[in-house]
Amino acid sequence: MESEESEPVRRRPGGRAARVREAVLAAAADVLVEHGAAKLTIAGVAARAGVNETTVYRRWGTREKLVLDALLAASDQGIPVPDTGDVRADLTAFATALAEYLATPLGRAVARAAVLGADDPALAEAWQEFWRSRLDQAAVMIQRAVDRGELPAGTDAAVAVELLAAPVQSRALLGHRPPEPDFPGRLAAVILDGLRGR
Amino acid sequence: MESEESEPVRRRPGGRAARVREAVLAAAADVLVEHGAAKLTIAGVAARAGVNETTVYRRWGTREKLVLDALLAASDQGIPVPDTGDVRADLTAFATALAEYLATPLGRAVARAAVLGADDPALAEAWQEFWRSRLDQAAVMIQRAVDRGELPAGTDAAVAVELLAAPVQSRALLGHRPPEPDFPGRLAAVILDGLRGR
Repeated sequence: MESEESEPVRRRPGGRAARVREAVLAAAADVLVEHGAAKLTIAGVAARAGVNETTVYRRWGTREKLVLDALLAASDQGIPVPDTGDVRADLTAFATALAEYLATPLGRAVARAAVLGADDPALAEAWQEFWRSRLDQAAVMIQRAVDRGELPAGTDAAVAVELLAAPVQSRALLGHRPPEPDFPGRLAAVILDGLRGR
Repeated sequence: MESEESEPVRRRPGGRAARVREAVLAAAADVLVEHGAAKLTIAGVAARAGVNETTVYRRWGTREKLVLDALLAASDQGIPVPDTGDVRADLTAFATALAEYLATPLGRAVARAAVLGADDPALAEAWQEFWRSRLDQAAVMIQRAVDRGELPAGTDAAVAVELLAAPVQSRALLGHRPPEPDFPGRLAAVILDGLRGR
């Protein structure tokens, strides 16, 4: 993601470059909420952030990278990966936070943009990177549980995080009904112990 | 869904009314694939099916009911609920059939229409009925397994079918990557026995 030219920018996290980055990503998130990813342009985001268009091009290069960075930033703020020391509590807290995030205007915009973006060849790679990154982050919960001896070595972490996140995403995206308060805990119970129980 | 006026229609499944119904639902499915649910109109579907607009109004009443009926018909054709006598085989076969259906143009159109339809208040109720109906049908697999003694009484069938279908839907809708051939089986394994194993 980082071009060599932008390296010095990252070494001054509190400086003007950091403020520009924050303003641009906030403007991009606003555009995502109001118009969707397909209508996001670098010119539009630059104007909204009050920065020069060439500054945005120098920092992000393409609109696809800008969209991806805005999504990752929005998603990082929205869904922290919990670390309670107990895998059931972690999974339940993560699914709860995801449901709450997807109920916000930004979360809804990100999820809907993802559905439409999946059909756009220019954005497809950015979306795949976005999801891979999110799922890898969430899989840390499973790895920690293996390290603590709560789950066996060789646990299918990739399928576990998809089983946890997807029902919450489907509830939000497909609108059949909002998740009940006990829904995250019911998901975690089946994922950990199965329908056959222990 | 059925008005009293349409009852006699249903009693002649092989007659002209049945052919009209089939033609209208096929035309509606074509419109869903090509233009999406938001742009489906009764006039457009009637013209495409070569039937009178008032015939469609008399049979379906509203565009929302026509959309729902077309989705249910398309979905019934696309995703049979298996009955192999073994719950793991049933769950794996259902997730496989769902993945194959969502890879077809009609399946993609239905899923994308669902995401956009969830935001349309006029369609929200039709979508909720669509999903409730689909999930209830799939839950029969769980009930049969309880009846056979494969799963304990009181098994959380509602969560089970959402855990099975949602990861397949998310793969299709969010485009992070198409399901691998072993993905349905891995989902079924975790849903039945959990990450902790037996």
